Amino acid sequence: MLGSRWFLEFTTESEASLHQLEEVIYTCQTRYQSLEILRLGSYGKTLVLDGKMQSCEADEFIYHEALVHPALITHGAPRKILIAGGGEGATVREVLRYPTVESVCMVDLDEEVVNASRRYLKEWHQGCFDDQRVRVYHEDARRFIAEREEVFDAVILDLPEPAEEGPAIMLYTVEFYRMVSERLAPEGVMVTQATTVSVNNLGAFTMIHNTLGRVFPKVIGYWTSVPSFYVPWGFIYASRTRDPLSVDADELERRLGGLKGRLRFYSPEVHRGMFALPRYLREAIGREKRVNSDSNPLSFY
Amino acid sequence: MLGSRWFLEFTTESEASLHQLEEVIYTCQTRYQSLEILRLGSYGKTLVLDGKMQSCEADEFIYHEALVHPALITHGAPRKILIAGGGEGATVREVLRYPTVESVCMVDLDEEVVNASRRYLKEWHQGCFDDQRVRVYHEDARRFIAEREEVFDAVILDLPEPAEEGPAIMLYTVEFYRMVSERLAPEGVMVTQATTVSVNNLGAFTMIHNTLGRVFPKVIGYWTSVPSFYVPWGFIYASRTRDPLSVDADELERRLGGLKGRLRFYSPEVHRGMFALPRYLREAIGREKRVNSDSNPLSFY
Amino acid sequence: MLGSRWFLEFTTESEASLHQLEEVIYTCQTRYQSLEILRLGSYGKTLVLDGKMQSCEADEFIYHEALVHPALITHGAPRKILIAGGGEGATVREVLRYPTVESVCMVDLDEEVVNASRRYLKEWHQGCFDDQRVRVYHEDARRFIAEREEVFDAVILDLPEPAEEGPAIMLYTVEFYRMVSERLAPEGVMVTQATTVSVNNLGAFTMIHNTLGRVFPKVIGYWTSVPSFYVPWGFIYASRTRDPLSVDADELERRLGGLKGRLRFYSPEVHRGMFALPRYLREAIGREKRVNSDSNPLSFY
Amino acid sequence: MLGSRWFLEFTTESEASLHQLEEVIYTCQTRYQSLEILRLGSYGKTLVLDGKMQSCEADEFIYHEALVHPALITHGAPRKILIAGGGEGATVREVLRYPTVESVCMVDLDEEVVNASRRYLKEWHQGCFDDQRVRVYHEDARRFIAEREEVFDAVILDLPEPAEEGPAIMLYTVEFYRMVSERLAPEGVMVTQATTVSVNNLGAFTMIHNTLGRVFPKVIGYWTSVPSFYVPWGFIYASRTRDPLSVDADELERRLGGLKGRLRFYSPEVHRGMFALPRYLREAIGREKRVNSDSNPLSFY
Repeated sequence: MLGSRWFLEFTTESEASLHQLEEVIYTCQTRYQSLEILRLGSYGKTLVLDGKMQSCEADEFIYHEALVHPALITHGAPRKILIAGGGEGATVREVLRYPTVESVCMVDLDEEVVNASRRYLKEWHQGCFDDQRVRVYHEDARRFIAEREEVFDAVILDLPEPAEEGPAIMLYTVEFYRMVSERLAPEGVMVTQATTVSVNNLGAFTMIHNTLGRVFPKVIGYWTSVPSFYVPWGFIYASRTRDPLSVDADELERRLGGLKGRLRFYSPEVHRGMFALPRYLREAIGREKRVNSDSNPLSFY
Repeated sequence: MLGSRWFLEFTTESEASLHQLEEVIYTCQTRYQSLEILRLGSYGKTLVLDGKMQSCEADEFIYHEALVHPALITHGAPRKILIAGGGEGATVREVLRYPTVESVCMVDLDEEVVNASRRYLKEWHQGCFDDQRVRVYHEDARRFIAEREEVFDAVILDLPEPAEEGPAIMLYTVEFYRMVSERLAPEGVMVTQATTVSVNNLGAFTMIHNTLGRVFPKVIGYWTSVPSFYVPWGFIYASRTRDPLSVDADELERRLGGLKGRLRFYSPEVHRGMFALPRYLREAIGREKRVNSDSNPLSFY
Repeated sequence: MLGSRWFLEFTTESEASLHQLEEVIYTCQTRYQSLEILRLGSYGKTLVLDGKMQSCEADEFIYHEALVHPALITHGAPRKILIAGGGEGATVREVLRYPTVESVCMVDLDEEVVNASRRYLKEWHQGCFDDQRVRVYHEDARRFIAEREEVFDAVILDLPEPAEEGPAIMLYTVEFYRMVSERLAPEGVMVTQATTVSVNNLGAFTMIHNTLGRVFPKVIGYWTSVPSFYVPWGFIYASRTRDPLSVDADELERRLGGLKGRLRFYSPEVHRGMFALPRYLREAIGREKRVNSDSNPLSFY
Repeated sequence: MLGSRWFLEFTTESEASLHQLEEVIYTCQTRYQSLEILRLGSYGKTLVLDGKMQSCEADEFIYHEALVHPALITHGAPRKILIAGGGEGATVREVLRYPTVESVCMVDLDEEVVNASRRYLKEWHQGCFDDQRVRVYHEDARRFIAEREEVFDAVILDLPEPAEEGPAIMLYTVEFYRMVSERLAPEGVMVTQATTVSVNNLGAFTMIHNTLGRVFPKVIGYWTSVPSFYVPWGFIYASRTRDPLSVDADELERRLGGLKGRLRFYSPEVHRGMFALPRYLREAIGREKRVNSDSNPLSFY
């Protein structure tokens, strides 16, 4: 018998997904957005903001390992880390695997997301919010970066989509990336989630890629498939100096060997595999001329 | 305004996808299955069999390039090719890019699928059914292989899912793979589509992988993301002698240089990238002990 | 096996219906709206405007008999009829059953709806557009009524919902009803479709009812269930003099006996039954104080 | 923004409805069926059994008043009542409005439905389970009736649909109705809910009607629209002696005047209105020849 309760998400105007809804664990309207914590048939516990799936118990590890490790492994010995977004606490969990890490600033606008995550998403954060190296700020990440004088070894942008009137729309512009660059140490690395790289919907990824290229000498996109995201997903790495493809397999292995805990997705092989972009994506990056700017920030939905 | 016409597919009991339905191009009930050719909002023209999306205009190139090229490039100089399934004609299109190919036998049970594809899916086959090297047989692929004495350089299994009472359920067993092995030249290669590799649904892939391992010394799984398939997709390469990872990048580039036409997905980089399996998948393959056999063929749905 | 093609209509923000979509017979974008003629699993051929079901082959007779006969039977001997809307031609079909009818003006803004109906909805109009008594005008019904000097025995308002920016929003106001009143003969009758009377959505019906009460001495609401409309449906009858409940059963029977053709829904019993409003509806009418006016025409969706 | 959580019910193979799901109040698997108590956007609190909506806070009063009052008002002075089904306690609530009622036996197979209703559906039962006149039995209603020697003034069959392998399939047969007849006082009345009377789905209603006609001299169908049921709904009244249409309006009014509490749907007008069957339904009843029997009990879905 087909289930009676479903989670419905229109991922574009012409596509939607339905997931069996086993349990409504928690819902509220925060100051910024609607928040739901649901249990879905295929993917287990799931965080939903403004009706959009953010991450699922079953495969959040893919997204978070893919977001964090290519940049931090490439750096080699990161000490001070800034995370923008990341309310579930899984990004900080991956960051804390590095024994060199001394401090993590996590800036997530919506305190209620972090509070709900602390309470309901323990599988994600695994207690990391209580690590003494971690400080959490509930501010606009852009203002936080603008006002700080601190310098970071890595900046990880774990942000919602740049949706019109959404909180993250000013966190994908060339002006913002310049601020990030100023807060990075000379050998520092940054990475941003970079929306879908589905064949019919490449424009956001390529525009973020080209925009980062105005600020950083080394900009390298990569991708993987997070099943619950439905479409293949893109990330973009940037740095002034370090190249993730110049670290050889043995060195990757050695660096990974020092991490705490067990990874479930990322490996030296996967590191290289994610940087192998399909031809259509590489060509679309090559054709892209647009730069995303404060005066006309694009909304990708 | 949200569209009014939708294509709905339950991909599992607890997941479904909805696609805006722009046009119903053709529908019929064939001798074996229901056939629909639809135009969907995100993916264009789409072939649907028994309610399940088979391939879409927008991204069929990813699936078909991923299915064909790793095996044929690894072989290097394939002359005689057998395709089981492949009714849309896109697999044969990719095969005919190799100038060494002298003959292609394509065995697809359902003549009406091939006829509808010839008429409505020209973007897929691009006239390849009329190439003099191609012969199409409408028979059960298993019987075809059992009865032939011919030997092939490559066997490409472009089959529907092994669904209970579906036509392909006996084309994933160890007994069938032995028949395939007997029809392969000593240096021959084979590849099969191998269902999803989504985190919560790995059993079919790992079982096919283990089953092939009983027949072939070299069995190597790979994967990619075909956006319209929703979940990441697996393929398995097998051979007695040749290893797709032992061909170096320059040689891959050289072999690709000889192909006719322009690829849109596959490249030497992507070749290696697809073989980089996530840890969770590699570990699941390692744990798999089941062998799929005629006496108890598993239905994966 | 569950079908793969569906028609989806959100009837309110919190309710939708899905109907199996057997065939897309015709679609176009007219000057005013999107038009679809579909074949649905339960209800057969169906006219859809701007994504909203208008009428279905299987049960349009209920709606059209319920709209036309209470007013015309009450009148007794209607000669000149005005229909606003009614593009499918089924309202005119019901009107032409009365042998006293000498002329029918049908005013439907959207010529393409009428043309598509003539071609594809023969079960609705049954050739009535070719009856010599019928003239069809493609104008705004309000302007048509304002500019005419003719007087009618009956005015039948077979209009779309009063949706914001929809073509019918100015055809439910007190000013419009005054114009209608001026075009009615002293013993004339009028009727309008009057949206849903579902328990949780009575406001549109009661407001139209109260608004008509400012213009006509006799205003009597009635209702029935048109299955494909999902929720129970309301109509409102108005007249200066005639009361549908003062015609006794024998007289109703006698008048019905003179009609051409066979009715499938309406009977003297049903006539009285439809005027039996549930308590909750009668009470809601009693409480309603709002008047719908040109200066602030309400949109009910 | 469209909601993200939905209740989906396929009412036939080719129709489904979606309701916004505000809250999952309680779910369990009882010994007989799956039970959900949900809060739906349009209809408030809702009882769902095996995925099918049973009754909603917003309009359960329509169904329960329509089920109970035509029979009991026609009887005039009912003292002993038997209810089969009715787990929510709303049928008993309506029955207890009659000051003549001395005892009510309610037989509902599934104790867990009654317990969940007592706890979560107070708007339905309003404490009636605690009335000293009420006794609740958790047995098969057919066996209960077969084994009793008591005689009742009214038997009210508030049953689930006669679905294959469902618990109610043997409670719509001629043999069962004979048992009911034996337990009725000479002037006793009975009523059963009788499934949909939608134009394209009349067979269950007409067959139950014809089956009752083999047992009772007076069998009279009636109908109304319960909005959350989607399609118009049928009921069938039966008795050896009493005719609901022979009670005149003044007498109906007088009898209603004696009831406790305030009705929201039923009135003398509505009483008569519900018995006004559409022509298509009256004709379908006239054509029906089938009798539903134990040896071949029809499943209507």
